[in-house]
Amino acid sequence: MKVGIIMGSKSDLPVMQDAADILNELGVAYEITVVSAHRTPERMFNYAKTAEDRGLKVIIAGAGGAAHLPGMIASLTHLPVIGVPVKSSNSIDGWDSILSILQMPNGIPVATVALNASKNAGLLAAQILGTSDEALSSRLKAFKEDLKKKIEDTAREMESGTI
Amino acid sequence: MKVGIIMGSKSDLPVMQDAADILNELGVAYEITVVSAHRTPERMFNYAKTAEDRGLKVIIAGAGGAAHLPGMIASLTHLPVIGVPVKSSNSIDGWDSILSILQMPNGIPVATVALNASKNAGLLAAQILGTSDEALSSRLKAFKEDLKKKIEDTAREMESGTI
Amino acid sequence: MKVGIIMGSKSDLPVMQDAADILNELGVAYEITVVSAHRTPERMFNYAKTAEDRGLKVIIAGAGGAAHLPGMIASLTHLPVIGVPVKSSNSIDGWDSILSILQMPNGIPVATVALNASKNAGLLAAQILGTSDEALSSRLKAFKEDLKKKIEDTAREMESGTI
Amino acid sequence: MKVGIIMGSKSDLPVMQDAADILNELGVAYEITVVSAHRTPERMFNYAKTAEDRGLKVIIAGAGGAAHLPGMIASLTHLPVIGVPVKSSNSIDGWDSILSILQMPNGIPVATVALNASKNAGLLAAQILGTSDEALSSRLKAFKEDLKKKIEDTAREMESGTI
Amino acid sequence: MKVGIIMGSKSDLPVMQDAADILNELGVAYEITVVSAHRTPERMFNYAKTAEDRGLKVIIAGAGGAAHLPGMIASLTHLPVIGVPVKSSNSIDGWDSILSILQMPNGIPVATVALNASKNAGLLAAQILGTSDEALSSRLKAFKEDLKKKIEDTAREMESGTI
Amino acid sequence: MKVGIIMGSKSDLPVMQDAADILNELGVAYEITVVSAHRTPERMFNYAKTAEDRGLKVIIAGAGGAAHLPGMIASLTHLPVIGVPVKSSNSIDGWDSILSILQMPNGIPVATVALNASKNAGLLAAQILGTSDEALSSRLKAFKEDLKKKIEDTAREMESGTI
Amino acid sequence: MKVGIIMGSKSDLPVMQDAADILNELGVAYEITVVSAHRTPERMFNYAKTAEDRGLKVIIAGAGGAAHLPGMIASLTHLPVIGVPVKSSNSIDGWDSILSILQMPNGIPVATVALNASKNAGLLAAQILGTSDEALSSRLKAFKEDLKKKIEDTAREMESGTI
Amino acid sequence: MKVGIIMGSKSDLPVMQDAADILNELGVAYEITVVSAHRTPERMFNYAKTAEDRGLKVIIAGAGGAAHLPGMIASLTHLPVIGVPVKSSNSIDGWDSILSILQMPNGIPVATVALNASKNAGLLAAQILGTSDEALSSRLKAFKEDLKKKIEDTAREMESGTI
Repeated sequence: MKVGIIMGSKSDLPVMQDAADILNELGVAYEITVVSAHRTPERMFNYAKTAEDRGLKVIIAGAGGAAHLPGMIASLTHLPVIGVPVKSSNSIDGWDSILSILQMPNGIPVATVALNASKNAGLLAAQILGTSDEALSSRLKAFKEDLKKKIEDTAREMESGTI
Repeated sequence: MKVGIIMGSKSDLPVMQDAADILNELGVAYEITVVSAHRTPERMFNYAKTAEDRGLKVIIAGAGGAAHLPGMIASLTHLPVIGVPVKSSNSIDGWDSILSILQMPNGIPVATVALNASKNAGLLAAQILGTSDEALSSRLKAFKEDLKKKIEDTAREMESGTI
Repeated sequence: MKVGIIMGSKSDLPVMQDAADILNELGVAYEITVVSAHRTPERMFNYAKTAEDRGLKVIIAGAGGAAHLPGMIASLTHLPVIGVPVKSSNSIDGWDSILSILQMPNGIPVATVALNASKNAGLLAAQILGTSDEALSSRLKAFKEDLKKKIEDTAREMESGTI
Repeated sequence: MKVGIIMGSKSDLPVMQDAADILNELGVAYEITVVSAHRTPERMFNYAKTAEDRGLKVIIAGAGGAAHLPGMIASLTHLPVIGVPVKSSNSIDGWDSILSILQMPNGIPVATVALNASKNAGLLAAQILGTSDEALSSRLKAFKEDLKKKIEDTAREMESGTI
Repeated sequence: MKVGIIMGSKSDLPVMQDAADILNELGVAYEITVVSAHRTPERMFNYAKTAEDRGLKVIIAGAGGAAHLPGMIASLTHLPVIGVPVKSSNSIDGWDSILSILQMPNGIPVATVALNASKNAGLLAAQILGTSDEALSSRLKAFKEDLKKKIEDTAREMESGTI
Repeated sequence: MKVGIIMGSKSDLPVMQDAADILNELGVAYEITVVSAHRTPERMFNYAKTAEDRGLKVIIAGAGGAAHLPGMIASLTHLPVIGVPVKSSNSIDGWDSILSILQMPNGIPVATVALNASKNAGLLAAQILGTSDEALSSRLKAFKEDLKKKIEDTAREMESGTI
Repeated sequence: MKVGIIMGSKSDLPVMQDAADILNELGVAYEITVVSAHRTPERMFNYAKTAEDRGLKVIIAGAGGAAHLPGMIASLTHLPVIGVPVKSSNSIDGWDSILSILQMPNGIPVATVALNASKNAGLLAAQILGTSDEALSSRLKAFKEDLKKKIEDTAREMESGTI
Repeated sequence: MKVGIIMGSKSDLPVMQDAADILNELGVAYEITVVSAHRTPERMFNYAKTAEDRGLKVIIAGAGGAAHLPGMIASLTHLPVIGVPVKSSNSIDGWDSILSILQMPNGIPVATVALNASKNAGLLAAQILGTSDEALSSRLKAFKEDLKKKIEDTAREMESGTI
């Protein structure tokens, strides 16, 4: 396992699944589970403290509302932590999720991605691993090429009036 | 000690001192220290887990920015936790502090007061203790009477044109 | 009756019912009714002024928009008041409800919970009563244990791929 | 006395004085005092309930933070109430003051003016009285003419390069 | 005609009709039409300039987005102008409508009511007229009594468990 | 005169002067004056209605708070209007100025630039005129080259450790 | 081709089509395609660098979220660029789209229109071309007349009670 | 060179220097320069396209206002990009900087840190490099220990009443 994906609640899964899917697509091993900062604080401690020994290199943590999971994981490990602000049912348009993940104090960074952007969290994890994995790095370049081709195809369609 | 006052950083002390002062004024015993959710997570765990045994009945926690201290303390104890959003130097006009303290998920409440309002946090702690302490309850009634008298004095001055 | 639950309008009941339900679950006696700061100001005065004599120890007040009920009740009694910002139909995404409950001046605190979080208001009321009621305090600990178990069950399901 | 000017705190006087000054300039009699919704709720009740009998036709109420004074006065009298959101020291850039005055529920309007705009509150009070006072109405027209002339003078200066 | 009700677009009618309805209920004569600041500026000038001569005492203006109608009418007449921020389809959650109506410069007040609160605009217009019309003033007192009775009825139902 | 620069108040001049300066630098003739939508509505009408005949091709209008000047000018002329939101003393951090200029309804566009960005307003006016003036177009290209050179110089300094 | 309409994604087409439609209505030739700043940066460079040679006079660029397309196009050409903030599915109520288009630094203006207001972008492009095209200028005046007539018709209907 | 630090303007240096300082402290080689997305787009392209060949593993990009630099660099390279929202003089309280860096579309992540938090950007870069550099990883653990010790020292001082 290279990447750990955790989320504060089962209801975050529809958003967080995207991180797992892109890691699958890029051939990066991951584990995925629920860890709640507020309901299972001891479990969160254990998860973070044993992460390195389980072989994790990067942790992706998603949460909504007063989203403390990414920042608390970051406080408990020196591994890079990617935070996904989730627009959960108890969130005020996502602002609370974003600010409580992004605005970490000096000394304990969380790499925050856009609201609900767990696909980007997976990509960022792969980019991080790609800094020391040339094969993965090549797959990321191919992924970017593919994004470009899709837009170019769309452009041709729009220019020819097909859409 | 009945009330524990904690803050995420020494720089929060000018704000948090007001909580201590009003508790002093109302004759409520308290302890005050620094506990950082992000820099001393183990210390935070210990603080919360031993709070009841140390005799604490209420905990007041102040923090700024991505303020996780109040919510994490609340996750670790069944005692009532009062959160003070601090407009710290790394805060965006206080919005991050407020939202990351207020917007707790169902199951783990934090009694949030206004931005920088640690005096109100102290008063709220006293009101909570006052639910089972008649003498304290009387002192709170007197405190309210005093607030009223000050306004009435000001009103007389303004009506007579003195101010 | 230990806890009074009031709301500004009948339309707040679907939100506020959660406070009643969790108090029921925790075995705390309560009363519930409608008190409008703006449409029945005299009734609000009477409610607050007679609260202590009716045996109330804590008051939970929910309101939306320019939500004055929690703060006005707090101005009229020395009992702890818990405010629930309701995202009512006349509210701007809940911001008006939150700010007009949270941002009380020094001297008159309102213990504010998250938007629509009346379940947390009920739990906070129980925590306040639990500071002098050991049996209730034990039930709150059990409640926290139960929250933890549910997350751990979910984690096992997710880790085994059942969900 | 035709207009009552009230404010929640002595610290609001530098803002609220503008209302008094413009009423003086327009020859409208007024009274001015401090009434705190949160610290002197009974005084607020009495003020509102006796307003009509004291001859008041319009009430101007200014307050900051969780500003309940204008809305509560409006709940207690059928007279038109003008609310001035004050950017007080405990206000979050004025947003709390604005929203807790403006967002009144159906049935109890408050005529809200801009942040700190107590001069406009005074003018609005005069406009209201002017609906049944032709002399005052004429003075208001002259006031508008004067505003226009000042801008035209400035325009001439700027066009001639004097400023 | 005592009150003029205008709106920037036909699509504002569902909101603005409430102002007409409450004026009907209170027996206040009004006229209602569409005046667009941006599409019919000359019509807007004429409307405002002839308002007094048509007998209007108060003007209610509703608009959404960059809502200039209330403020421009206020610039063109000395009559009191009530502004209704409409949450139109081109509005960002109503914030643009509110700020462009509320934040008028010194000298030209607009009496702003809550988002979409045209019923309150109608009531405020009646309160303004009521300052010189005792019969209307009495109807307003009765209206307030009626609001109170409805809440008291609801309270009885909720207390008896009917709802 | 090709460009008209207007502002709602003399206090906007320190911001709006930048538009004049860049037009000077680019050799574009302009006129500059004060036109207040709210205090001199007739003057605003005349200004807009005679703009084309005076030879104006573009109008730059700056205002703060409930900033109606740019939108109202746009309603009165078919010439392109550039709006500069000014963070004036009566503005709430510039949000009111921005939203009341930007959020114009369909049919009446205002080309809005950044808060206080009157230099960009001047540049945009020049770009508009440059669509039919090759010499001006060349000066704009040179201006862009110059911006680039300044950054490249700074980069060399920073890379060599001079700054 | 006089106007280039580009957008960051095919999903922006329902919004951006309005720009094409109004240009059609006004008889202005345009081209329309997809150019993504983030997925096809080289294509964006080429598009901007060849724009003048293809005869483009104005570019309309729409994008949502962290919307970099309008500003980057503006950095690459001296032609006037009109930015349309799109409330895309990944946007936070449009605020991110607006701010990342509007708040350009000094030297590189983007003429920003309201959220989703691509019709106004088309009109603004026509107004810009109209500064040197009298026939187009006349069509724009007729368009404004038509807007006025529609409102006047609506007004008559509303005044006669038909709607 | 392992890390590239770039910023949109010389005025960002006081903020961005913190990233360089912490990398120095942790013994990570870096280069630092100015690259403006809007004023030197070609330079930005070259910087990003040659980054990998120059040996860069991570890029830290800081910018304010409509901050396009981090996202555009991310569009041009597969290396991980860390974005620092700078509260520059042309920023609206930092909101524009944050949203235009954070809200990147799916496919092109930017690892965003808190407003002005370039120290955290440097730490995050080190954490990323630490995933394949055990010595650096150990220095990061020591850095975390040091943070903890400082808080514990402060706590002892506060508990003993020294501060």
